[in-house]
Amino acid sequence: MSNVRDKIIALERGALERWGKGDPSGYLELYAPEVSYFDPFTPARLDGYTAMEEHYRPVQGKIWIEHMDLRNARVLVEGQTAVLTYNLVDQVRLPDGSGTRESRWNVTEVYRCINDDWKIVHSHFSFTTPPQLPA
Amino acid sequence: MSNVRDKIIALERGALERWGKGDPSGYLELYAPEVSYFDPFTPARLDGYTAMEEHYRPVQGKIWIEHMDLRNARVLVEGQTAVLTYNLVDQVRLPDGSGTRESRWNVTEVYRCINDDWKIVHSHFSFTTPPQLPA
Repeated sequence: MSNVRDKIIALERGALERWGKGDPSGYLELYAPEVSYFDPFTPARLDGYTAMEEHYRPVQGKIWIEHMDLRNARVLVEGQTAVLTYNLVDQVRLPDGSGTRESRWNVTEVYRCINDDWKIVHSHFSFTTPPQLPA
Repeated sequence: MSNVRDKIIALERGALERWGKGDPSGYLELYAPEVSYFDPFTPARLDGYTAMEEHYRPVQGKIWIEHMDLRNARVLVEGQTAVLTYNLVDQVRLPDGSGTRESRWNVTEVYRCINDDWKIVHSHFSFTTPPQLPA
């Protein structure tokens, strides 16, 4: 069990680190064909690998995260399913180069072991609290 | 499989309908002891049944939802785990009685079959899009 836990967290960290350098393909490599997805920017759930490729295409090369802190990681394993949940605190570089902005996320990732590979079948990213309004 | 799908959706609808009448105990009855939970109002993930009882105590009797529309329900079943995802569109009665406000949610519920009962082991509610600012 703890072996699965460590493996799942390592897969997620690897994909997150690539994401933080503007490379969404770390996540795309983890997605199962039937993956579904929620984030705060889509008007409804996205379903399927092709929808995720289209969703990520515009952000390729456009994101730079200076620092990411994965907190409270928890993995529930049952059968071939592992549910990873964590809080993520990011320091995102602002596009105008003027510094960084903190963003806080609630994250749920449902992994399934398919032919000895752990793949994400459902992903849910949301803001830990609604974004703060500018003062 | 379709039997499990229908059962999971019926359990969720039952808990939602009670929630919409100010009664969180429909959800509390579905939670496993080890339940974890995200919503947009908590500073981090909540872990465990007792944390959920405390989280819900202040809202008991304070919520009234005129209409709720559960859209795009999808259930992924593997072993004893069922992952329910859906979009929810609520018409919430305003506390001052002046009408209703629409709220839109992304919802992930991870159910597990424990001693022939389906229980929620992880729950993630978030806004489909960040709340609109007043004009």
